[in-house]
Amino acid sequence: MVESSEKTPVSYAQDDDKQALLARLKRVEGQVRGLQRMVEQDTYCVDVLTQISAATRALQAVALGLLEGHLNHCVVDAARQGDPAAKVKEATEAIARLVRS
Amino acid sequence: MVESSEKTPVSYAQDDDKQALLARLKRVEGQVRGLQRMVEQDTYCVDVLTQISAATRALQAVALGLLEGHLNHCVVDAARQGDPAAKVKEATEAIARLVRS
Amino acid sequence: MVESSEKTPVSYAQDDDKQALLARLKRVEGQVRGLQRMVEQDTYCVDVLTQISAATRALQAVALGLLEGHLNHCVVDAARQGDPAAKVKEATEAIARLVRS
Amino acid sequence: MVESSEKTPVSYAQDDDKQALLARLKRVEGQVRGLQRMVEQDTYCVDVLTQISAATRALQAVALGLLEGHLNHCVVDAARQGDPAAKVKEATEAIARLVRS
Repeated sequence: MVESSEKTPVSYAQDDDKQALLARLKRVEGQVRGLQRMVEQDTYCVDVLTQISAATRALQAVALGLLEGHLNHCVVDAARQGDPAAKVKEATEAIARLVRS
Repeated sequence: MVESSEKTPVSYAQDDDKQALLARLKRVEGQVRGLQRMVEQDTYCVDVLTQISAATRALQAVALGLLEGHLNHCVVDAARQGDPAAKVKEATEAIARLVRS
Repeated sequence: MVESSEKTPVSYAQDDDKQALLARLKRVEGQVRGLQRMVEQDTYCVDVLTQISAATRALQAVALGLLEGHLNHCVVDAARQGDPAAKVKEATEAIARLVRS
Repeated sequence: MVESSEKTPVSYAQDDDKQALLARLKRVEGQVRGLQRMVEQDTYCVDVLTQISAATRALQAVALGLLEGHLNHCVVDAARQGDPAAKVKEATEAIARLVRS
């Protein structure tokens, strides 16, 4: 697991944001367990593929929500402190990984 | 959960294929639970985004393996029975959902 | 430009298929030239990004049409000749490149 | 072609940025014309698919460069002027279109 060395303030620290994010990840976990049940029940391959696409889209929706929070807090704070370029580059690299996954 | 009306033969029915597919889905489930731990520990947003991309790529790898099996069995069987067009169209639609997710 | 060493039969050899494929690629070429005009006219970045997504989706639609033809002809022919595995593997690798682009 | 109603300042207005962006789009145009030549020469489907993926990745690289400029200029300016939320939302929607294309 890749983690920043020191505790950087996070955009989802507000309790409701955090709980909403955890709830969405919990749902994705449920979708992946649902995929396992489909395979155990010999469900037709194309139906399993359809649900894999749905789980992938759910993961992307979590990422996009997290990204909007990151831009609104971490990148905006860096802009106000006068030195946003590093945070913007870091965010763009995260977006590139999302686009290519 | 979308399921075919009748029990269609599946490409992963061979026990080792099925166990390998279940093991990969189990790992993705573990990755999604790992994401929840990262959020509970206030991990920096970009590090969480990086792991979401990794989980998304793992799901796509499962889909591509399943697709290869489907082409090798279900589509090839249809070709040998003389009427592959419907199976090919169905497979292409599943691929389109993957490409756009 | 990556090309097969010898002339392999192609799925779009039928003249209408070929002309339809060329017409779609011509339209994508027009979209990319349109993007250049937008930039020359200092169009707002987000509007340019929107049109880049549209051109990307158009390219993917071309790829999916070509893929369906390839599965229906090249992979089905290999299935009938008794040895589809290599063609299926090759098609799955092409699909993986599409999914990750 | 979707355009903002009034002339919004753009992140690539600096002449070198603009010329670099135009040069990259010119190369993508050349790639799409190359695809047409491949089809005219009956090039094997999988080789054409490989080049479509290459052109798609090139378009995405243009989009990511444009996005980094947009975040660095338009979003950062809005942050300094005290009201970034609308610009961040707009950028996140553009990123979502990229992720799903």
